[in-house]
Amino acid sequence: MTTSSFLNLDPTALSPHDIYRLLIGTVVPRPIAIVSTQSPSGLNNLAPFSFFNAVSASPALLMIAVSRKENGERKDTHRNIEETGEFVVNTADVALLDPLVHAAASYPYGVSEFEKVGLSALPSVKIKPPRVAESPAQFECKVFKLIELGDSGPGSSTMILGEVVQIHLRANLYHEGKIAQGNLEPLARLGGISYAELGERYEKPIPQIK
Amino acid sequence: MTTSSFLNLDPTALSPHDIYRLLIGTVVPRPIAIVSTQSPSGLNNLAPFSFFNAVSASPALLMIAVSRKENGERKDTHRNIEETGEFVVNTADVALLDPLVHAAASYPYGVSEFEKVGLSALPSVKIKPPRVAESPAQFECKVFKLIELGDSGPGSSTMILGEVVQIHLRANLYHEGKIAQGNLEPLARLGGISYAELGERYEKPIPQIK
Repeated sequence: MTTSSFLNLDPTALSPHDIYRLLIGTVVPRPIAIVSTQSPSGLNNLAPFSFFNAVSASPALLMIAVSRKENGERKDTHRNIEETGEFVVNTADVALLDPLVHAAASYPYGVSEFEKVGLSALPSVKIKPPRVAESPAQFECKVFKLIELGDSGPGSSTMILGEVVQIHLRANLYHEGKIAQGNLEPLARLGGISYAELGERYEKPIPQIK
Repeated sequence: MTTSSFLNLDPTALSPHDIYRLLIGTVVPRPIAIVSTQSPSGLNNLAPFSFFNAVSASPALLMIAVSRKENGERKDTHRNIEETGEFVVNTADVALLDPLVHAAASYPYGVSEFEKVGLSALPSVKIKPPRVAESPAQFECKVFKLIELGDSGPGSSTMILGEVVQIHLRANLYHEGKIAQGNLEPLARLGGISYAELGERYEKPIPQIK
């Protein structure tokens, strides 16, 4: 392979907004969590996050990182999780693109995005927040750990680790202990306001070293 | 939308291996970090990870979660990062599929995957581990925090948060403060031994609520 020329940037010379744009444009493709939560008074909330991944199988842990609003306040998802300790991670497929983009809009606290975006709430088994019926895989989570990453001011983020306490898989996705990937059309988050479907797939076993 | 029937699984009834397969098959598509490290004696190491994402813009933080080997020992990447506090996250594009799969093979500690897999090491600016010349975006990182997620036994994982101290972007990727996404062909990690290119892309602004 040939080498390319590079721009060399010192992050201390960039604004948090520039760093954010740079990170979401290069750390791609990102999976999307549609997170459902419930306020202590029982109002449901739904919002998408792509600073999201699995991080551990033992215990079973999912991670989302949630930034503060520009005024420094916690987002509704963060607030509900801190106050109740419970949330559902609903994974996204291509059919969920429009609803999840709508769920990212700034509805007033207490307005249920389920109704606004046309998704169906199903009761969870072990926690109070409902799950999204249209999502291919739903993970009921209890807070494992909350980790403040910055100074808790505007633009800073909180990492939320959730221990999976119940799993719901669309029936056609699980076959003899394996995920039937051919039945899943994942949605990817890219930079800016971009999303993508998947294209060609490759099977690549790790070579054995003799 | 219509609702589907679901399998309901209690993770306490599943083995860590089953949970791992289920998570990597459903939390998709994942971005890939090709992580370069150096041992205290100066030997280079390279390995791919997909429990990986950006988590914060202020400070600029990247996260990888690294599991223990089946015998409970730390992987070389983990060991080098704990001992030196430094690593480079090199992002992956489609052209890097074969080299990164080869870098995942179990070479003995101290064998440089750079030579074995045919990638070129470029000097970093602020840390000792070299970066991968063929990677579209390279992030020099210093350890921000290490977080043990399990009991430090076989199968448990450590979350490594790195503060980005220097950024290198392939010159054709950055245009007027934005990432030129048309010049990037990201590689996605799926379940099992599967990878994917991206297909159709969509631009979806978040709607304004009146």
